[in-house]
Amino acid sequence: MSLTTGSELRQILRDKIDHKTKPPGSLGVLESVAVQVGMIQQTENPQVTRPHIVVFAGDHGIASTGLVNPYPRAVTAQMVLNFLKGGAAINVFCRQNQIELRIADAGVDANFEWIPESQGFIDAKIAKGTRNYLDEPAMAVEEVQEAIEKGRSIVAYISGSGCNCIGFGEMGIGNTSAASLLMCAFTGIDLEECIGRGTGSNDEQLEMKKKTLKQVYDKHRAALGNPPGSLETLACFGGFEIAMMTGAYLEAAKRRMVIVVDGFISSAALLAAISMERRVIDNCIFSHSSGEQGHQKMLDWIGARPLLNLGLRLGEGTGAALAIPLVMSAVNFLNQMASFESAGVSNKE
Amino acid sequence: MSLTTGSELRQILRDKIDHKTKPPGSLGVLESVAVQVGMIQQTENPQVTRPHIVVFAGDHGIASTGLVNPYPRAVTAQMVLNFLKGGAAINVFCRQNQIELRIADAGVDANFEWIPESQGFIDAKIAKGTRNYLDEPAMAVEEVQEAIEKGRSIVAYISGSGCNCIGFGEMGIGNTSAASLLMCAFTGIDLEECIGRGTGSNDEQLEMKKKTLKQVYDKHRAALGNPPGSLETLACFGGFEIAMMTGAYLEAAKRRMVIVVDGFISSAALLAAISMERRVIDNCIFSHSSGEQGHQKMLDWIGARPLLNLGLRLGEGTGAALAIPLVMSAVNFLNQMASFESAGVSNKE
Repeated sequence: MSLTTGSELRQILRDKIDHKTKPPGSLGVLESVAVQVGMIQQTENPQVTRPHIVVFAGDHGIASTGLVNPYPRAVTAQMVLNFLKGGAAINVFCRQNQIELRIADAGVDANFEWIPESQGFIDAKIAKGTRNYLDEPAMAVEEVQEAIEKGRSIVAYISGSGCNCIGFGEMGIGNTSAASLLMCAFTGIDLEECIGRGTGSNDEQLEMKKKTLKQVYDKHRAALGNPPGSLETLACFGGFEIAMMTGAYLEAAKRRMVIVVDGFISSAALLAAISMERRVIDNCIFSHSSGEQGHQKMLDWIGARPLLNLGLRLGEGTGAALAIPLVMSAVNFLNQMASFESAGVSNKE
Repeated sequence: MSLTTGSELRQILRDKIDHKTKPPGSLGVLESVAVQVGMIQQTENPQVTRPHIVVFAGDHGIASTGLVNPYPRAVTAQMVLNFLKGGAAINVFCRQNQIELRIADAGVDANFEWIPESQGFIDAKIAKGTRNYLDEPAMAVEEVQEAIEKGRSIVAYISGSGCNCIGFGEMGIGNTSAASLLMCAFTGIDLEECIGRGTGSNDEQLEMKKKTLKQVYDKHRAALGNPPGSLETLACFGGFEIAMMTGAYLEAAKRRMVIVVDGFISSAALLAAISMERRVIDNCIFSHSSGEQGHQKMLDWIGARPLLNLGLRLGEGTGAALAIPLVMSAVNFLNQMASFESAGVSNKE
């Protein structure tokens, strides 16, 4: 247990940083990250150990209609296999940055029983895809609860292996639509402003997506509650991978892990998590501002300043995997830089 | 030699990227970086090998007056020793990201003859600091030429060791002032807009700095030439580390190296280099937008989009050291990701 109060530790961390051989504040956002990681871990000597990315995958009922997604629904399952073979962008970035990668099947419409867990695969399937929210809620509330519990268990297991820094990615054809609907419900931002091109809708497809999602939102508005309830909103709009990630955020914060937040869909799951427990936000470092329109508005609403501005819009946790080295840089400068005193460097006159 | 023309190779690189298992464009700026590195190296399979950072250090005559700098001039030499002992931020980031670090004494006011080159130190001293440009030009034109030549030699030597990706940092108390004066001369942007707080001037110090630099600029305006000549401008405003870096840029571009550009002062040296050879810019990847006011304007003038937005304003090459992993990520996804065909993933309908 810490012997210092929160504000004492914060001041100790700030003082430690201000004695490093550099002008005060000159490492910018990395200084805030260093303080934040120290506060999360309740120590002036924080460490990042065994960083992980978990990619949650799930299918969406709406995606069978082709109304919201340019890629066929089968791509979700195909990409899971691609992750397991090491051929996706997230594999490349995790290998480069020595991040351990796990792929969780939250609800993919495919038979994956034959895949051994030793390949980094986690079988957490709730069902083979959500229902079509044009007709009915995407999930039952019980399914949402099951997904949240499974997300919690996955993070608990990874935390037990010695990991204290985690990022969450996702794969699910159609899931920018779910994320837009969740964003609208949890932030109150106008639905149209929450909808973007996803994996690359053209103008006509975007109009169709907007029209479809407006219809969906209107259909379920009354069932969400006022203000929208966390479980009810997740149930109406889905998907399994988002609900499971919501549980993962809750557990990671509970275990005082550093959470590196990825893009639009991951941030929508975070909105669900903070609607349930506000303090989750204290553990979050925001990796990037996505090219998906709506993400920057979401970040502004949260009050987050992301580390990268690369115009990424791939998901899979790629932004988080690229930003984890920066989190480690923040921790490393805090632990390894000389002080003015130890290096014999003169401070300001 | 390449068998393809420039535009053919560019198209080959774009096609290769567009067949990767991801929506087109979804890796954002990393895709442009991958194409750029391929074009620099004239290959569809680029590689980053033995990345280096060279920190050029030099003292400035003006810094003895205390008119422009809150830290004492002796800090330049003290920081060089800190670099050699491994205690500065640039050491931490280079160690983390497996970047080789060299410290070049371009003109520090200290006796460093006793330091062995095996410690990563390069003795390239022109003189013990520049002259005070309030009274006379900071350097003679011959000194500028000597510094440029030494910068070229340093990069030629490093390139010969197998390095094809390089970033340049600097240390020199007072050198944001030189950089502001150079920026004004080379871009034509109003001097006041080119001047910022440097290592942390307060309001009063900033006013003094502005007043001093205006006086300096007016004194030398006629000697710069119209448009300002590259050598004359470097001679008037200095410093040795900036002129040496100018030569380093020229040689790195000549040798088709990937150049990762750091912050405000490094970008001012780049302005000098591109005033001599415009095509240097084709080899440059911009690491970050500095917290030093003026850097973003410089980047806008160049037409550059930096990778990081961390509010850094430390120099030393720290932004470049933090961004080199992203350059490697761009190269890695190009070389390692599966294609839709190889992974059996369906493309857009």
